[in-house]
Amino acid sequence: MGGDAAPEMVLAGLELAAERHPGAKFLLIGDEARLTPLLATHPRARAACLLRHSAEAIAGDMKPTLALRMRGASMRMAIDAVAAGEADGVVSAGNTGALMALAKIVIKTLPEIDRPALAAIAPSARGDVVMLDLGANVQCDARNLVEFAIMGDAFARAVLGLPSPTIGLLNVGSEELKGDDRVRQAAEVLRADSGINFHGFVEGHDIATGTVDVVVTDGFTGNVALKTGEGALKLMRDLLRQVFTSSVPARLGYLLARPRIIEGMGRKLGLPTERVVVKSHGGADAMSFAHAVDVGMDMVTHGFTQQIRTGLARVSTQALPSVAT
Amino acid sequence: MGGDAAPEMVLAGLELAAERHPGAKFLLIGDEARLTPLLATHPRARAACLLRHSAEAIAGDMKPTLALRMRGASMRMAIDAVAAGEADGVVSAGNTGALMALAKIVIKTLPEIDRPALAAIAPSARGDVVMLDLGANVQCDARNLVEFAIMGDAFARAVLGLPSPTIGLLNVGSEELKGDDRVRQAAEVLRADSGINFHGFVEGHDIATGTVDVVVTDGFTGNVALKTGEGALKLMRDLLRQVFTSSVPARLGYLLARPRIIEGMGRKLGLPTERVVVKSHGGADAMSFAHAVDVGMDMVTHGFTQQIRTGLARVSTQALPSVAT
Repeated sequence: MGGDAAPEMVLAGLELAAERHPGAKFLLIGDEARLTPLLATHPRARAACLLRHSAEAIAGDMKPTLALRMRGASMRMAIDAVAAGEADGVVSAGNTGALMALAKIVIKTLPEIDRPALAAIAPSARGDVVMLDLGANVQCDARNLVEFAIMGDAFARAVLGLPSPTIGLLNVGSEELKGDDRVRQAAEVLRADSGINFHGFVEGHDIATGTVDVVVTDGFTGNVALKTGEGALKLMRDLLRQVFTSSVPARLGYLLARPRIIEGMGRKLGLPTERVVVKSHGGADAMSFAHAVDVGMDMVTHGFTQQIRTGLARVSTQALPSVAT
Repeated sequence: MGGDAAPEMVLAGLELAAERHPGAKFLLIGDEARLTPLLATHPRARAACLLRHSAEAIAGDMKPTLALRMRGASMRMAIDAVAAGEADGVVSAGNTGALMALAKIVIKTLPEIDRPALAAIAPSARGDVVMLDLGANVQCDARNLVEFAIMGDAFARAVLGLPSPTIGLLNVGSEELKGDDRVRQAAEVLRADSGINFHGFVEGHDIATGTVDVVVTDGFTGNVALKTGEGALKLMRDLLRQVFTSSVPARLGYLLARPRIIEGMGRKLGLPTERVVVKSHGGADAMSFAHAVDVGMDMVTHGFTQQIRTGLARVSTQALPSVAT
């Protein structure tokens, strides 16, 4: 029931996902009265899913503290199904704060991880780039950054299928002495014997260049950077639209370029918990919702949480001072 | 002598600046043997400037600590001329770190300002947006953010000619409760009786939208955000170049769009000191160097530093806890 175009978008996405993953079974939770007629027009989704009625839905702007009390909400019932072992993971396009709060409290995050993170896959000149954290943690210490690096490594292996993804730590410069204590301490741990392919510091422009496969940063910077990049691309698209509708040859040029121009920056979000919880964008369409399902399937299939555990066992962050509150 | 295309680019920029500011006098400092023949081909620049020989130049990658020792360097001699009252301001496209260190130590920053900032003017859907800090201060407290807001307000008045610029504080969301203590405390002071037109919190995408005239943030986030935005635009331009050279109509479309497509994000940098020091981009061309001269002239003409003093006198940041080291 979550997302701007739900539930129609979710059903259309599920239809695509059911086609891509023939063996998969889906537990669809929401308002039966609205979902039943939609299932009638989506035969693959109907064949692959079990419908469970929920009378309530968490609104997009509801505070997480209030959302936690709605025990009959569709999102809560989906999270409960994962906690009970009925499902391996959840995919939702609903309220991000509520989903994170429910995942943390009901499913519980990996005990070794201090805090869960929000990740996105951004396009770059060289292919997909995983970026985290994007706002789940506005204040981070060196230890959190190291954990995000391990999670990003596991995410890139599981979802992008990279055998040894390169990891970069976002900073104001690429030299070892740049930045604050927090990033320098995290880099020192990652450089030492973390078992991950640590590239070193990267800068803002390295995200779009695709210098590394995974870009690690704190939630404040990551959130601002992602939105700034999205905003810059949107400005460019709007300018282009004006320019390219100003004459016939320009219009032709625009039509040719459109398929690549419409590609945005952030595509989907995932946050690692004991089970897998994938957050699809609130403005997702059927294609991107189906893609979020792919991400969840990949994470489950490739033992995402086990990879994080293995990664964490390799690094020691005990010596790091904690600077976040 | 500073900047990738110096000194030719500087002379061509000076020629443009001399034409735009007929009454202005320029003190040109650098290698006489290289500058004299260039002056011969730039008659307006030659008529408006006094050439002072300097045998040394600070390299773009030199550490500020080393640069401070080069007393005969062209950048140092320019800063010395401002300190001695011979010039009202400096414009340089050279080593940013060296310029900031020299400005702080030789000219000295305003006594009321804790730390100087680096600002840029970015294009938005609604016009120019001033953004600061961009990396001079990687760790900032609430007090620094308030000072940046005052400086940004003065900058937008002096350089963009806005009578009452709107100021936004960059955060992970626009609601009052978002973010960390630092941004919430700064917002509280700015909301109270700062005398500036404080809009409240803005997000990354508001930079390109042009929601406010001035975007205030710490140096770490600002640096990453600016470079991410630049990187996203460059990725888009490169994609477009590929797409638009793939066929004749597409090529025509590209040619039509080009004048607006080539507009980047950051255009020039300024940092407020007792006198005015303007940092032009290292990759500046003659047009953007001339624009940096315009910025310096505007700052001097409109009493930029006096505006900052007046602004600072209006706010009280004494009660703010200091969180930066």
